[in-house]
Amino acid sequence: MRFTLPLFSRRRSAPVLFVGAGPGDPGLLTLSALRALKSAQVVIHDRLVGDGVLALIPRRARRIAMGKAGFGPSTAQSEICARLVAEAQGGQRVVRLKGGDPMIFGRLDEEIDALDAAGLAWDIVPGITAAAAAGAALGQSLTKRGRNASLRILTGHDMAGFADHDWRALARPGQVAAIYMGKKAARFVQGRLLMHGADPATPVCVVENASRPDQRILASSLGLFPEALAGANLGGPAIVMLGLTARSAAAEITDIMQQKVS
Amino acid sequence: MRFTLPLFSRRRSAPVLFVGAGPGDPGLLTLSALRALKSAQVVIHDRLVGDGVLALIPRRARRIAMGKAGFGPSTAQSEICARLVAEAQGGQRVVRLKGGDPMIFGRLDEEIDALDAAGLAWDIVPGITAAAAAGAALGQSLTKRGRNASLRILTGHDMAGFADHDWRALARPGQVAAIYMGKKAARFVQGRLLMHGADPATPVCVVENASRPDQRILASSLGLFPEALAGANLGGPAIVMLGLTARSAAAEITDIMQQKVS
Repeated sequence: MRFTLPLFSRRRSAPVLFVGAGPGDPGLLTLSALRALKSAQVVIHDRLVGDGVLALIPRRARRIAMGKAGFGPSTAQSEICARLVAEAQGGQRVVRLKGGDPMIFGRLDEEIDALDAAGLAWDIVPGITAAAAAGAALGQSLTKRGRNASLRILTGHDMAGFADHDWRALARPGQVAAIYMGKKAARFVQGRLLMHGADPATPVCVVENASRPDQRILASSLGLFPEALAGANLGGPAIVMLGLTARSAAAEITDIMQQKVS
Repeated sequence: MRFTLPLFSRRRSAPVLFVGAGPGDPGLLTLSALRALKSAQVVIHDRLVGDGVLALIPRRARRIAMGKAGFGPSTAQSEICARLVAEAQGGQRVVRLKGGDPMIFGRLDEEIDALDAAGLAWDIVPGITAAAAAGAALGQSLTKRGRNASLRILTGHDMAGFADHDWRALARPGQVAAIYMGKKAARFVQGRLLMHGADPATPVCVVENASRPDQRILASSLGLFPEALAGANLGGPAIVMLGLTARSAAAEITDIMQQKVS
């Protein structure tokens, strides 16, 4: 299918664009993100950006892999900031491509601060975050009248190790939370929630490789999901969806490992 | 700029697609969303979908306006569900186009339940939600190491009127929340947070028409924003961003009404 890109209402002409690559499926890239990639001279990308998205970068652009990949090897943040500034000062049109949405667990501020300090202009092109891709995989709304008037997006890990949250509030019935980097923190999250009175039968789904061809859903419960996770051997990036089940219709398009919810 | 749409890893061949229209800027539409619109025979859209996005619907497709527009007139949900089922049963390729992300305050479940009851297949194409567009407008991350390891997306209103939330937790320093439909609930939200000990100097920004050409930012504080809102006369859809300031760089691209934060 060929078509002409629509005119954009916002100019994206800053020398550095922070661009959300989305969760992996190149179809979940925004039109502005695609336009930014097509006109970039340098693309500095995280290791979590999907191959399908990387394939859209023109050959004439320089591609630099830098940044985080879950618990794997990663580039120091200071090095990324320095490179970003150096490329932009060299007069290059730079796209800083981050998996998902750069504003959600993307360590965007450190890079923006570096550009501000150097007097370089930048702009942000938001991306589809993993929670949305996971919700679509489950075929569920992330908010629902009469169930949850609020959605939490949180991380299982922070600088200090396991991240602390308002577990008492999260333990209440009907809460919905998307827990990023939640795979390794599964037992910690489970322990905190049960300690604060959460029902072990609360549905929990783990979505691995959300939106990608190898997407898998582990449908489980709060009481069982850490053990199920250990058995399922999920190697890809995964998000833990607390308080959501998978609709049966989702089974038609995804490999669902259904567990009996106790 | 002309280009060929990349191949998509996920098929989107269900007769009904729930598609996120994003916050207004057509550049924030996803490639899958554009593809869905281009091949739709019927597009049933909310009143909040931006004109720039509606302009991308092909002329041969039937366009039906149905659904919510803030506090304005709206179509009964049962009527929307019935129409959706009828069009899909008539063999049409239907796109149900919702502003932002259909999974966030989009009343998606009711429509999915109606399709499931009729035995009709559907799929979800996520969209950029208003919180992400507002974060980009402010030039700020929605999460930040050492500040907030969690983001809340919540609504000022629910079925019962003003929505109740865990105000005690939200009142703590460093919390970041995107409050949808928060304009009319401003005094309620302010009252609850101050009652639970929040600092009146907590930054609050209201982003009107996020991502659209008429985007405006009201930069204020928890102690002052309801009054500032009353004076600013914001007519468009607005999102209240608790705990975030606007970076000065954002001022270059947006009309910012800066208030002295007490």
